[in-house]
Amino acid sequence: MPRSVRVGMIGYQFMGRAHSHAYHDVARFFPLDVEPEKAVICGRDRAGVEAARERLGWQESETDWRRVVERDDVDLIDVCTPNNRHAEIAIAAAEHGKHVLCEKPLAMNLAEARSMLQAVERAGVVNMICHNYRFAPAVQLAKQLVSQGQLGTIYHFRAQYLQDWIMDPEFPVVWRLQKAVSGSGAHGDLSAHIIDLARFLVGEFESVSGMLHTFIKERPVPGSAEGAWGATGQSGGSRGLVDVDDAALFLARFRSGALGTFEATRFAGGNRNGNRFEINGSKGSIRWDLENMNNLEVYFHSDPEGLQGFRTINCTEAVHPYAAAWWPPAHIIGYEHTFVHLVSELMNGIASGRSPEPNFADGVANQAVLDAVIASSESGQWVQV
Amino acid sequence: MPRSVRVGMIGYQFMGRAHSHAYHDVARFFPLDVEPEKAVICGRDRAGVEAARERLGWQESETDWRRVVERDDVDLIDVCTPNNRHAEIAIAAAEHGKHVLCEKPLAMNLAEARSMLQAVERAGVVNMICHNYRFAPAVQLAKQLVSQGQLGTIYHFRAQYLQDWIMDPEFPVVWRLQKAVSGSGAHGDLSAHIIDLARFLVGEFESVSGMLHTFIKERPVPGSAEGAWGATGQSGGSRGLVDVDDAALFLARFRSGALGTFEATRFAGGNRNGNRFEINGSKGSIRWDLENMNNLEVYFHSDPEGLQGFRTINCTEAVHPYAAAWWPPAHIIGYEHTFVHLVSELMNGIASGRSPEPNFADGVANQAVLDAVIASSESGQWVQV
Amino acid sequence: MPRSVRVGMIGYQFMGRAHSHAYHDVARFFPLDVEPEKAVICGRDRAGVEAARERLGWQESETDWRRVVERDDVDLIDVCTPNNRHAEIAIAAAEHGKHVLCEKPLAMNLAEARSMLQAVERAGVVNMICHNYRFAPAVQLAKQLVSQGQLGTIYHFRAQYLQDWIMDPEFPVVWRLQKAVSGSGAHGDLSAHIIDLARFLVGEFESVSGMLHTFIKERPVPGSAEGAWGATGQSGGSRGLVDVDDAALFLARFRSGALGTFEATRFAGGNRNGNRFEINGSKGSIRWDLENMNNLEVYFHSDPEGLQGFRTINCTEAVHPYAAAWWPPAHIIGYEHTFVHLVSELMNGIASGRSPEPNFADGVANQAVLDAVIASSESGQWVQV
Amino acid sequence: MPRSVRVGMIGYQFMGRAHSHAYHDVARFFPLDVEPEKAVICGRDRAGVEAARERLGWQESETDWRRVVERDDVDLIDVCTPNNRHAEIAIAAAEHGKHVLCEKPLAMNLAEARSMLQAVERAGVVNMICHNYRFAPAVQLAKQLVSQGQLGTIYHFRAQYLQDWIMDPEFPVVWRLQKAVSGSGAHGDLSAHIIDLARFLVGEFESVSGMLHTFIKERPVPGSAEGAWGATGQSGGSRGLVDVDDAALFLARFRSGALGTFEATRFAGGNRNGNRFEINGSKGSIRWDLENMNNLEVYFHSDPEGLQGFRTINCTEAVHPYAAAWWPPAHIIGYEHTFVHLVSELMNGIASGRSPEPNFADGVANQAVLDAVIASSESGQWVQV
Repeated sequence: MPRSVRVGMIGYQFMGRAHSHAYHDVARFFPLDVEPEKAVICGRDRAGVEAARERLGWQESETDWRRVVERDDVDLIDVCTPNNRHAEIAIAAAEHGKHVLCEKPLAMNLAEARSMLQAVERAGVVNMICHNYRFAPAVQLAKQLVSQGQLGTIYHFRAQYLQDWIMDPEFPVVWRLQKAVSGSGAHGDLSAHIIDLARFLVGEFESVSGMLHTFIKERPVPGSAEGAWGATGQSGGSRGLVDVDDAALFLARFRSGALGTFEATRFAGGNRNGNRFEINGSKGSIRWDLENMNNLEVYFHSDPEGLQGFRTINCTEAVHPYAAAWWPPAHIIGYEHTFVHLVSELMNGIASGRSPEPNFADGVANQAVLDAVIASSESGQWVQV
Repeated sequence: MPRSVRVGMIGYQFMGRAHSHAYHDVARFFPLDVEPEKAVICGRDRAGVEAARERLGWQESETDWRRVVERDDVDLIDVCTPNNRHAEIAIAAAEHGKHVLCEKPLAMNLAEARSMLQAVERAGVVNMICHNYRFAPAVQLAKQLVSQGQLGTIYHFRAQYLQDWIMDPEFPVVWRLQKAVSGSGAHGDLSAHIIDLARFLVGEFESVSGMLHTFIKERPVPGSAEGAWGATGQSGGSRGLVDVDDAALFLARFRSGALGTFEATRFAGGNRNGNRFEINGSKGSIRWDLENMNNLEVYFHSDPEGLQGFRTINCTEAVHPYAAAWWPPAHIIGYEHTFVHLVSELMNGIASGRSPEPNFADGVANQAVLDAVIASSESGQWVQV
Repeated sequence: MPRSVRVGMIGYQFMGRAHSHAYHDVARFFPLDVEPEKAVICGRDRAGVEAARERLGWQESETDWRRVVERDDVDLIDVCTPNNRHAEIAIAAAEHGKHVLCEKPLAMNLAEARSMLQAVERAGVVNMICHNYRFAPAVQLAKQLVSQGQLGTIYHFRAQYLQDWIMDPEFPVVWRLQKAVSGSGAHGDLSAHIIDLARFLVGEFESVSGMLHTFIKERPVPGSAEGAWGATGQSGGSRGLVDVDDAALFLARFRSGALGTFEATRFAGGNRNGNRFEINGSKGSIRWDLENMNNLEVYFHSDPEGLQGFRTINCTEAVHPYAAAWWPPAHIIGYEHTFVHLVSELMNGIASGRSPEPNFADGVANQAVLDAVIASSESGQWVQV
Repeated sequence: MPRSVRVGMIGYQFMGRAHSHAYHDVARFFPLDVEPEKAVICGRDRAGVEAARERLGWQESETDWRRVVERDDVDLIDVCTPNNRHAEIAIAAAEHGKHVLCEKPLAMNLAEARSMLQAVERAGVVNMICHNYRFAPAVQLAKQLVSQGQLGTIYHFRAQYLQDWIMDPEFPVVWRLQKAVSGSGAHGDLSAHIIDLARFLVGEFESVSGMLHTFIKERPVPGSAEGAWGATGQSGGSRGLVDVDDAALFLARFRSGALGTFEATRFAGGNRNGNRFEINGSKGSIRWDLENMNNLEVYFHSDPEGLQGFRTINCTEAVHPYAAAWWPPAHIIGYEHTFVHLVSELMNGIASGRSPEPNFADGVANQAVLDAVIASSESGQWVQV
């Protein structure tokens, strides 16, 4: 009988739902030494969090995150709040000896991220940052191909994370559009993901040159709080300033000598969730697109002349990472499975006492790139990471 | 607090796993008046079923399906066995007043299917057949478009269900390749699905002309039992006859005047799970492919001249059937979600006392087409359905 | 200085334009021992044919095909007329010792086709039938893969030729919709192409079972002649009977044991020119689509486990058939290039005195399949080819 | 009878072949007031140019471009040489009153480009730069959609031109890899194209920030001259320096407020000719890929909710720009047709005395962007265009 890891989750909106599902399903598909138990869910709105508790299947609900962090019967704190609460909660959790899973981006800035890393290291707790896309089987296969040298020397990494959900000028200034709450806009939300994929697949950044831009600078203030942590206290009808970026673009040099292009935007109509990358190496290339996340396109230059081309691999076979846990070949999996895979690693990490990647150290490295791009956008110059 | 529906599931292999997941997750995503409770899982192999019970999260395990059917504390019998047990179990379940969910194809032949329908009708129990692909949001959108007349008069339905998992001649004679257990091969397994989609989207069949073919007529006998219901008792080393079809092809006329082409095969290399259809109507066309199941391709002839083309709709938006229960747009869902949707309908059916479609009447209609194709293959002539 | 082959072309509509282009360009891209010279273009309408002569760059125009066939200074007769004139003209051409290129389908029926074959054989003239799609580099690569055994034993050939140009019920009864002129509808026009591809790639047919269907049985009579050979003499305003098929569907058995599905229709909205096939063999599979005619999708079962998938080969590299004559890789070619390739083979055939494939013998074999499908459609039974 | 424009073409390699084809075919497909006549082809190698003359169908050959420019019986000079000869030849041609078509990039640098523009303006001759990709029907449709406001305010333009033909380190230092001959590498060759598409579709650039990079800095010296204008005089066996970029990446701001990302490389394995762009506007988006050049993908935000998605338009219908001249819908055209379209415009320009776009003024504007990116790459800062 596996030992259980009692989870206290702070936040219950989109990410809260995705994480809850992962805790709910992981032991049904992955053999684990320790299994998560959905102990406490926490949000500031009493009625909201209680409804979430019932719907998402948690044992208890709570409105003050401090009380959750202080409980003796909680082993793991899962931080699903808006970005401006990550540091405070994660540090408190670590200080109380809790393992910590934190949503991305790790923090509001590099200094904050470093203090979080210090806290978990000092406390010796297991920590992870929730860059779930690493855990798509196709991305894991990409990693294998790169690590095994099957792509050779990497020349190019180009990534785009294209969305379109705030193109309507009447879409309100939700928390993700407020710098004080989110730190940045598309950059922290979307660039963070493709930076993580780049670090995972190509390695560390050396320098960046970028620009952040806001297309629509004023928007309606939401009439009521958008979610537990998005409340602004402002009344409806008025208009508020958008002080975060709508789009973030940057070029990069990697330490390996590879070149990178990165583009994150919420103004790419028709691209609902277009997280895409392509890697070109001396021996081959790969392409991935989150909207078709089960597939990896692979090109090998060693294929016979006249028979070279990108092949589409549906990464759902028993031989593919994580895939054996699910269904027969080409019975595809979806978005939330990436969280299940991540949580399975987190549980294994807790069982063994090691922090699986990506952890807070990765969060710090990621934040360093995010901040360097912002600095470059302000100075108009290349910035060392 | 929703009333619970206690489930007894017979079989625990592939379909047992998929159904278990649906029972496990459905109430986390869909508000239900009644919620499934994973009461008893049943298989003939004691150790196997007990391992499945623990892994899949059922309360009790059982080795004799009759004892499950007879229990007072079970409300719903879920038949996930090989095909030759469907009728016996489903009829017994109905006679004990249990609601019944049965895997497809409903039966070994039309007579058996009819007796099953009689049994559930006589008992007045809620019944469904598990044609899960109807419940992909993209297929539901297709249904809406057809029903609303947006495709106009339907001229063509062409469907293929292409797999490749038994192409290796050394793949053994598992139960799906034994007529006594499965009734037919690719036909009952795969044609049944595309016939259901055709009936759902285009309506009833009038006549068919088809052929069944077996490419590899002898295969190794499996050394040990393949799953709870696949045991053959035969020792390894010897070779056994394949007496089911490897491929089933047929043409069809629908009552509406539409024409159909159907092809099911397990010998289409590179097509792991290629369940595809295209419908052409006087006003538009649609295409779907299970391997990309979130997408529906739609063509409207009324689009402005010069701007006509198939558009790819990622059916993951709140406005799409079932999609609001899951994630934001283009955060795709997977294969098993179709079962969750189906089970949500089944629960609503049980709550209201009506059998949702597809039910045993659909199973009978489906079996009538399956049998007509077999008759046509034998006679070399067109057969009325 | 290459010897020139003086061409007399009968017909100047769509096919006349495509053939003219091929004669115009072939020597600019392919080194030839004999080069075509656009000597005489022939059509019944004086003004029309003269305009065509000037636009398409022919030396002389003529209104009576007999005079063209009788000229001493013409070496090759190219038959681009509607189908009901093919036999008469081709036989006369052969009797006058001319080489003959004939559009497809070869004839109105098998008997006619055989008499044409007899005529060219008796006369010993070089002959070809214009199945141009064989000459797409991707189709030639497909042929190489099949011939070299890289796909292994062929199990399935499935082909569709989907168009949508007569879906509007007010589209008039042009010659292609009149049995007396065209012999059949989608069948002779489109099935003929996919039958040729099947014969080229998989070999000879053994038996077929099919159906022909007409969705719209009455249409407006064209007010004026549609093209040189489409004149009906009927006045506008009235409606005429459509006595050819709108769609033709059939199943087939090949002599090799492979199974085939074929569908040709002019009622598949959004499919402007969807000539597609897929071949599945024991070692691999290939797919082709005319609308993306430069690409061949290839699957090899021998690719390493976990790295198997269809690869997209852009058949524009120097190593691909005919491609070296054109542009660098991925600078794609178009529809009319298939005619240039075919004419290059015809010229080589004339230079060497041999009839390249596909020739009139292929036309006869093709017609035998066409006729067998019609017979099957009438009898409702399988018909031996 | 149309007046003829006698062409003198300098250079006979890849571009010489493509232009020759366009002159050869244009009047067969487009009604023109003036028609090109392939008068003189010029190259420095006597045997080479004479072979080209015969193969490409020119009346005379010549080895000294000055003699061609001075001929009274030549109306149009077509400059297909390597980049370092463009200015000299084009200016001399203008001074002799010849119309000029010049390959891209217009010049070695902005100063040279301006002197060329001055020369043609002073002489009052018709001039064009050969940015042929503007003339793909799909790109023309894109232009229409943008111009008509169907995409709304443009937010993003992202373009990549990815090739892979020099990835092999043993590929020699041909003229395109020598700065003295080509000016730059991937930048002038490939960036020039996507800059032109950006200017055509989105308008003028305001500022850029970029980097140029050379992955392989030393390569074998070609043993013999590579083409008429690529001769280096160096003996084989030794290795030479690559002093041009292998890849050029840059970000851009457009005057309209749109943002741009640009990437050109010859090191993107598997991308043979991947010239792609996507435009996102407030009302819609479009995508294009040269490897599938007949298609335009279009997304309209005004499509009904739930039915929104990119539609694939095969731009081969009579209503599409230039398409009526060719074949029926979905009978696709190829790479070289873009040159035919461009030459048809050039002929119309000569007939009317106006220089069609893109002309030398466009070449200057393009060169200004190219140079600004180089300056930015050197300074590490944003540069105003």
